[in-house]
Amino acid sequence: MRLKKYTDYALRVLMYTATKNEEKVSIKEIAETFFISSEHIRKVVHQLSKAEYIETTRGRNGGIVLAKSPTDINIGSVIRIMENDFYLLECFDDGHNQCVITPACHLRHVIGEAMNAFFQVLDQYTLADLMENKEELRALMNQ
Amino acid sequence: MRLKKYTDYALRVLMYTATKNEEKVSIKEIAETFFISSEHIRKVVHQLSKAEYIETTRGRNGGIVLAKSPTDINIGSVIRIMENDFYLLECFDDGHNQCVITPACHLRHVIGEAMNAFFQVLDQYTLADLMENKEELRALMNQ
Repeated sequence: MRLKKYTDYALRVLMYTATKNEEKVSIKEIAETFFISSEHIRKVVHQLSKAEYIETTRGRNGGIVLAKSPTDINIGSVIRIMENDFYLLECFDDGHNQCVITPACHLRHVIGEAMNAFFQVLDQYTLADLMENKEELRALMNQ
Repeated sequence: MRLKKYTDYALRVLMYTATKNEEKVSIKEIAETFFISSEHIRKVVHQLSKAEYIETTRGRNGGIVLAKSPTDINIGSVIRIMENDFYLLECFDDGHNQCVITPACHLRHVIGEAMNAFFQVLDQYTLADLMENKEELRALMNQ
């Protein structure tokens, strides 16, 4: 049971950008801070921008800033957008499901209930909650 | 976000075996019922046997039976054993974690709390709960 790497990276991009307040940040500095390839960060930034969590501007004075307040960036929503595949069992994927007992099987509901509980927790948190110790995080990022 | 294929198959093996009551079942018939390769089922059966959920006997009258009552087979426990990797984020894997903000990051706790909520739901169910409509399941398996 894992989340995608891109989900992990997306949360780091949001946290990094949030520690910088209004200051524009670059893909390069995020990549270097976390020892992740710029190409991965670029893809994640594109998705976060499309989802309107961040704003990117090009050019010499360009860079990345949050598009909304950290209090308005819900962790559950970010993870839902980044994951985009919640086929915990074959039967969750209607297009490819071949399991013969699907019409009578209660397992799908049990797993679905567990997944709802997972997101109910995540939906209680925003990026602001992850920023409570912003100075400490910033110090680690600048090491 | 997915569970491993083997976790899905393990739950099917347990459900199939439970529908047959005390009757011994074979890897071949489970594989044929679910259109899954015998090799996959063999591996899953080995793990379930090691974890003492099923008993296997060899020979002409051999086969697979449940090693305990369905009420004693907890769904959360089965999934924990089959998954065996809960590195939802890089920082969950102490041996390979390179994320610089780990010492101050609250995200790990938030995701950990969500994962606990996921298992709290699963821990409320046993194989017996999935067998409430055993006759209906058996009919679908025998089609």
